[in-house]
Amino acid sequence: MDTTPRAVTRLIDEFHRLPGVGPKTAQRLTFFLLRAPKEQAQSLAEALTGLKEHIVNCSICQNIAEENPCAICRDDSRDRSIICVVEEPLDVLAIERTREYRGLYHVLHGAISPVEGIGPDDLRMQELLTRIQRDKGIKEIVLATNPNLEGEATAMYLERLVKPLGVKLTRLARGLPVGGDLEYADEVTLTRALEGRREV
Amino acid sequence: MDTTPRAVTRLIDEFHRLPGVGPKTAQRLTFFLLRAPKEQAQSLAEALTGLKEHIVNCSICQNIAEENPCAICRDDSRDRSIICVVEEPLDVLAIERTREYRGLYHVLHGAISPVEGIGPDDLRMQELLTRIQRDKGIKEIVLATNPNLEGEATAMYLERLVKPLGVKLTRLARGLPVGGDLEYADEVTLTRALEGRREV
Repeated sequence: MDTTPRAVTRLIDEFHRLPGVGPKTAQRLTFFLLRAPKEQAQSLAEALTGLKEHIVNCSICQNIAEENPCAICRDDSRDRSIICVVEEPLDVLAIERTREYRGLYHVLHGAISPVEGIGPDDLRMQELLTRIQRDKGIKEIVLATNPNLEGEATAMYLERLVKPLGVKLTRLARGLPVGGDLEYADEVTLTRALEGRREV
Repeated sequence: MDTTPRAVTRLIDEFHRLPGVGPKTAQRLTFFLLRAPKEQAQSLAEALTGLKEHIVNCSICQNIAEENPCAICRDDSRDRSIICVVEEPLDVLAIERTREYRGLYHVLHGAISPVEGIGPDDLRMQELLTRIQRDKGIKEIVLATNPNLEGEATAMYLERLVKPLGVKLTRLARGLPVGGDLEYADEVTLTRALEGRREV
């Protein structure tokens, strides 16, 4: 017999639909909000409702933004000769956090994945090619897709498309992660680290 | 420079306020909802808004419910001579899942915790005492508070209050968790398991 109020079960179910949220976590979050002041649940609800209302895709870099073009594409202080190609908006955030990169971005919104049925046409690749062809100021494309199967496949596919356009093509370095432990590094990473060794 | 749209940052912040949700998880959930159909975020928002609207506290057992009295307290097929005292509504769910317990409940809504400034008066203890005093049909009180410091303190406090009322007072058995490994059991659990050993 289920004696839980429907409003509670419903919220548990909704939380459970989120990735990485199991039934126990969904319960815990729901009962937390039941005990918290009503404002907290309300404030989360409003943030959810407003999420897509004020969001557009930048027509240049395809990243999510408040305005079109986005703040980065509009920023004159950025180096417009280099474009970093990433899979997701989250990757832009990660690279921006380094404060090292001053160029522009291009967000593919995914990676090639035959398993999930995602092909090149489902990604914003054509937009990237058009961008390179139109803007002669672009000198370098940094392929910054994820270092996994899908990311590698996407990078290889892009390589074939972009190379003929005559711009410099680079990839992020592979090697040991900072703070990592050599003895725990997998063979592939260690091989890449050896291949990419530098003179000091 | 933060180039993330405010609506996105806002939802990340709101998720981050939930217990056990770190900044990375908050980001992941937000970007998942950005890619998911608008209905999913909307549906979660509605569940949040509706959470407290249809919820009351049962005036008998103090559990959250849709109606007062709650479904369990109204259910004539349940054994009204036994009350299981738990800390939280979630604990009722856990015990109901066993399908073994057919008595009633009493939800304290917390446990005594000097660290968090929660004393006996912040819990629904008086309601339990009144219930026992009024209803002469109550024969047994099962103390099912958590097996931790706060739960033990709460049980001991209740013991002193309830004993003089002349009802039978029991506690949940302590011992080895089913599926557990004897060699990994801590000393306290093992001691309790020895103390509670049964003839087979």
